Amino acid sequence: MVLANTYHLHLQPGESIVEGAGGLHRFMRWDGPILTDSGGFQVFSLSDMRSISEEGVTFRSPKDGQMIHLSPERSIAIQNALGADVIMAFDECPPYHASREAVIEATDRTYRWLQRCLKAHQRSDQALFGIVQGGIYADLRQRAARQLADLDLPGYAIGGVSVGEPAELIEQIVQVTAPLLPASKPRYLMGVGTYREIVQAIAAGVDLFDCVIPTRLARHANALVAGERWNLRNARFREDFAPLDATCSCYTCQNFSRAYVSHLVRSQELLGYTLLSIHNITELVQFTQRIRAAILNQSFLAEFGHWLTPNLIAASR
Amino acid sequence: MVLANTYHLHLQPGESIVEGAGGLHRFMRWDGPILTDSGGFQVFSLSDMRSISEEGVTFRSPKDGQMIHLSPERSIAIQNALGADVIMAFDECPPYHASREAVIEATDRTYRWLQRCLKAHQRSDQALFGIVQGGIYADLRQRAARQLADLDLPGYAIGGVSVGEPAELIEQIVQVTAPLLPASKPRYLMGVGTYREIVQAIAAGVDLFDCVIPTRLARHANALVAGERWNLRNARFREDFAPLDATCSCYTCQNFSRAYVSHLVRSQELLGYTLLSIHNITELVQFTQRIRAAILNQSFLAEFGHWLTPNLIAASR
Repeated sequence: MVLANTYHLHLQPGESIVEGAGGLHRFMRWDGPILTDSGGFQVFSLSDMRSISEEGVTFRSPKDGQMIHLSPERSIAIQNALGADVIMAFDECPPYHASREAVIEATDRTYRWLQRCLKAHQRSDQALFGIVQGGIYADLRQRAARQLADLDLPGYAIGGVSVGEPAELIEQIVQVTAPLLPASKPRYLMGVGTYREIVQAIAAGVDLFDCVIPTRLARHANALVAGERWNLRNARFREDFAPLDATCSCYTCQNFSRAYVSHLVRSQELLGYTLLSIHNITELVQFTQRIRAAILNQSFLAEFGHWLTPNLIAASR
Repeated sequence: MVLANTYHLHLQPGESIVEGAGGLHRFMRWDGPILTDSGGFQVFSLSDMRSISEEGVTFRSPKDGQMIHLSPERSIAIQNALGADVIMAFDECPPYHASREAVIEATDRTYRWLQRCLKAHQRSDQALFGIVQGGIYADLRQRAARQLADLDLPGYAIGGVSVGEPAELIEQIVQVTAPLLPASKPRYLMGVGTYREIVQAIAAGVDLFDCVIPTRLARHANALVAGERWNLRNARFREDFAPLDATCSCYTCQNFSRAYVSHLVRSQELLGYTLLSIHNITELVQFTQRIRAAILNQSFLAEFGHWLTPNLIAASR
């Protein structure tokens, strides 16, 4: 599944152009599933240039300085125009250091905004997922999860994690939240993650992830191999003619050596970043495929238990 | 045929690594033909940091400041290690504004260096091409061409053009030089060119070209379409859902719209430059294929004569 970004696509090229092209699938020529986020996360990251009200958010475009308004209705209208298979509710994502009062306000507003998103949504061929907020507060997360579960949505997301908090907090938030969301529906942890975070979240019941890590690492010349991050600019790869990962089925590993990829990134050849992106994405997909096989094979704890804390091991039995 | 650069590969990753990988074909995983230039052109472009003698050229590496020596023997040794199918003699390429005396000296030295290249060359599976220098002086070009033709080399190049001189001078140089090189051998015009330059050179007997234009234009968001250069950042492409060229068989034109490529380059997505490179290279290859078909079909002058000056039209009959 490809994730496309509502906020960035609204600024460039604009949803009307994507709609004119026949939607995202045709525009980018991708026949697989696509998900669009709601723009909430990006807008709330622009903390210096925005104002929030019950109605929505107004912010200054970093592209051309124009004032832009986003609201639940506007986000859904944009996502209806973009035409992804899964679209996300417009939520308020409080920062890690927000006070409990601010998080309560954001969580309640996110719930009211979800109601408005559901009302605004026009296309039955797009699945609208709700998002659980609640910051680092277990009781707020649980209340929000129960409220959402009652709505019988096609899918559920845990948002507002990976916003600067320690990894242990992500784990705790996911542990208290995921089990309260319907196991029969996709449960999606937004913006995660590392190998460890993925294993921990799967142990807690999460089905779906998105993360910039594989492509961001690739743009910085890093490969994910065997659970490690390797910087291909490192001198040890200059004469290493093995593939990045001899067990990997990706185009990069089937055709090119570490020495060649190292040469490409040292030369700042664009092909280097493309080859590393292909490998890193394949590596994470293969990692989740191994987890899936282990779950079906009753060997999840034996194979992946070393990533888990005692709490999660108990929960996974 | 892919052209690889002896000078750049010597600096990074170094020919010993390419040789260790099993040669350029295996290193970059390209099974088609490869040609390496000799490094002469690049070294002589570094006019501030080099010293030339009969023995060879010493220059300061722009990568790490180390002094590097290149000579006919060294260039051939590097090219033998790189392992391309066609390798080029190490030549002295005088600048456009060089005096006649300086050009005579460079042309004679290039001939003496060719003799040393032939003696140094170790691999019978690599074809070593000689290079005609002579600047903008028809008599020097002709003398050099006749000297080289006598050597029965596997191929012949016209070098030292496209170094800043007006396009008319390129045309004149090619017209006086190409017909003196054996028609039964590949005749290669180095560093050219535009549509017009290609047609003019083919009319004079040239078979082979190399040029940065298709990929350099792509990196600057330009597409070659129907003989024109289009900047895909232009507003007129934002909502243009046609392919770059509806008659083109390349991956880019078969799958993506002008609007999508425009969006990619506006977003500085690396995919945009890759898609434009694919198209531009295909476009120039298709252009030469059309010329080849026209020649075989006796319609070269009818179809391409509008690119030619009266001199060349007379010569092509």
